[in-house]
Amino acid sequence: MIELDRRQLLTGAAGLAAATALAPLWPTGATAAVPLAGAQAPGFYRYKVGGFECTSINDGARSFPLPDKFVTNVPKEQALAAAQAAYMPAGMVTVPFNPQLINTGAKLVLIDTGNGAAALGPTKGAVGRTLQNLAAAGVDPRTIDAVVISHLHPDHTNGIRAADGTLAFPNAEIMVPAKDWEFWMSEDNAAKAQSNEMMKNYFANVRKVYAGIESKVTRYDWDKEIIAGITTVATPGHTPGHTSFVVASGSDKVLLQSDVTNIPEFFLRNPDWHVAYDVDPDTAQKTRHKFYDMAAAEKATVVGFHFAFPSIGHVEKDGAGYRLVPVTWNPTL
Amino acid sequence: MIELDRRQLLTGAAGLAAATALAPLWPTGATAAVPLAGAQAPGFYRYKVGGFECTSINDGARSFPLPDKFVTNVPKEQALAAAQAAYMPAGMVTVPFNPQLINTGAKLVLIDTGNGAAALGPTKGAVGRTLQNLAAAGVDPRTIDAVVISHLHPDHTNGIRAADGTLAFPNAEIMVPAKDWEFWMSEDNAAKAQSNEMMKNYFANVRKVYAGIESKVTRYDWDKEIIAGITTVATPGHTPGHTSFVVASGSDKVLLQSDVTNIPEFFLRNPDWHVAYDVDPDTAQKTRHKFYDMAAAEKATVVGFHFAFPSIGHVEKDGAGYRLVPVTWNPTL
Repeated sequence: MIELDRRQLLTGAAGLAAATALAPLWPTGATAAVPLAGAQAPGFYRYKVGGFECTSINDGARSFPLPDKFVTNVPKEQALAAAQAAYMPAGMVTVPFNPQLINTGAKLVLIDTGNGAAALGPTKGAVGRTLQNLAAAGVDPRTIDAVVISHLHPDHTNGIRAADGTLAFPNAEIMVPAKDWEFWMSEDNAAKAQSNEMMKNYFANVRKVYAGIESKVTRYDWDKEIIAGITTVATPGHTPGHTSFVVASGSDKVLLQSDVTNIPEFFLRNPDWHVAYDVDPDTAQKTRHKFYDMAAAEKATVVGFHFAFPSIGHVEKDGAGYRLVPVTWNPTL
Repeated sequence: MIELDRRQLLTGAAGLAAATALAPLWPTGATAAVPLAGAQAPGFYRYKVGGFECTSINDGARSFPLPDKFVTNVPKEQALAAAQAAYMPAGMVTVPFNPQLINTGAKLVLIDTGNGAAALGPTKGAVGRTLQNLAAAGVDPRTIDAVVISHLHPDHTNGIRAADGTLAFPNAEIMVPAKDWEFWMSEDNAAKAQSNEMMKNYFANVRKVYAGIESKVTRYDWDKEIIAGITTVATPGHTPGHTSFVVASGSDKVLLQSDVTNIPEFFLRNPDWHVAYDVDPDTAQKTRHKFYDMAAAEKATVVGFHFAFPSIGHVEKDGAGYRLVPVTWNPTL
């Protein structure tokens, strides 16, 4: 009865009622059945870059039936085979999302923001978790000094808004690629895109997300150290202003690739495959080869927004493509 | 000043002093510098097996200079090359440790226990974290019904003791492989091992850890469902009684391999390499091929005690060896 009493203390009245009802059925063990937790561990992972403390923040992962033209330039069967080879659920593709938090010691910087808290919900998929995983990591969103957006696609930029539409990071400067801002805010471009449902939605989304806050937005150029230790790298194609980042401190650095590939199981192994979301797939393909040839030669640590959490690894040449060697989870810093 | 006041509330007097001292140096941003967290995220990861809720619990990982005979049957240079290919620190080898918690709904079972809380400390390496990661997962060690040990090596069994030497899981039945108990408790075997420093220490360790609690120990045999849903599988060689497990619920199952390999970067890729810790390396090698040929053919989910956290993946044939495809982190259950 000592065990039962302790369990009652732990679980309260509901536990007491359940325990009483179940008591006659218990096996001879010392304790009652422990309820299932029913939730995953927090999705954050810290890593050092010189004196910087970085945190990979999981916004979630979305599994959905593989669209016919997810990969635009190979038969669907090839894409399905790649999904199966990666042990994705049958007929589905799984896309993870991982913003990165950089604490330089002077500035707290969030690079990309995920799908937004409004995307979170039982019927909307398992994404939009950036704010809850930041909270799990002990980060108050009001302490973030800068939000840097790699490109203006919804899964990167929508997280600047909380579920109620207010600014999720109210004290942060919002920094966007000048070339992407120019492209997506152009009324000419928006008008031309009306016949393409996906592009039409993207143009509308950018307008909705940035409505009324244009004055908080700073536009950045390529090859600039936009924050001490964070330098922009031109990786166009996925979008006209798509940007990667070198995060460097002391003699240490990592490459934040953003969307040089979408999921590596498809587009790193097959760098000539084109994902449906590319604005200029041929340029994206050239960027991909250039970026990974460099990363492989340097044995650079690469962080990928769409890599499986914690989304960090090394890229190696592998035949005509590349392979990702994920980092080994480090239990200490 | 509103921001400063809020920061004071968050960080207390020390934060106030630091903030005041630093105030004149602040850039124009809205917030003060945020202290580095300096610690990794909790090391636990949940996964479902049918109706069971399983949790991979990271005991930590140990990096140490590669011993000359860590791999006993190939030149050290080959082992160093494998470590380098896996991006381990130069000249070092990294070995992770991952017990598994199984909540069957009726029983809470911990399979292996890690290096023990006594191993945890700044000068002793980053292992012995099982109790703290169980706590992070919300698990009270007093609620664990059974502790199942795969084999009687220190990194699997020492965690049955808390740092003060008391039983870490006071209400748990402790289940050990009968063949390992017989081997390691034999005074004849212990006497024969006195000339081998490693084996001598292993024999002494088993005696120390189990001193005075022999009556709490249950010995299990192979090919038995020792707990509903948990069946023992003979995988001898690493030790005479080394045991793997099938955890099955409904039509779903995973294979808990225990130490069929030590680190996969060495011994899964090169299944004919022998790790220094094997009692009978030739038998271990045969077991390895048999186990992975089966796992690859079945496309089984394999959990490895020495795989990188969260220590779950699929094993595929790759030339004369095998490769591990780690699972994609699932943000939901």
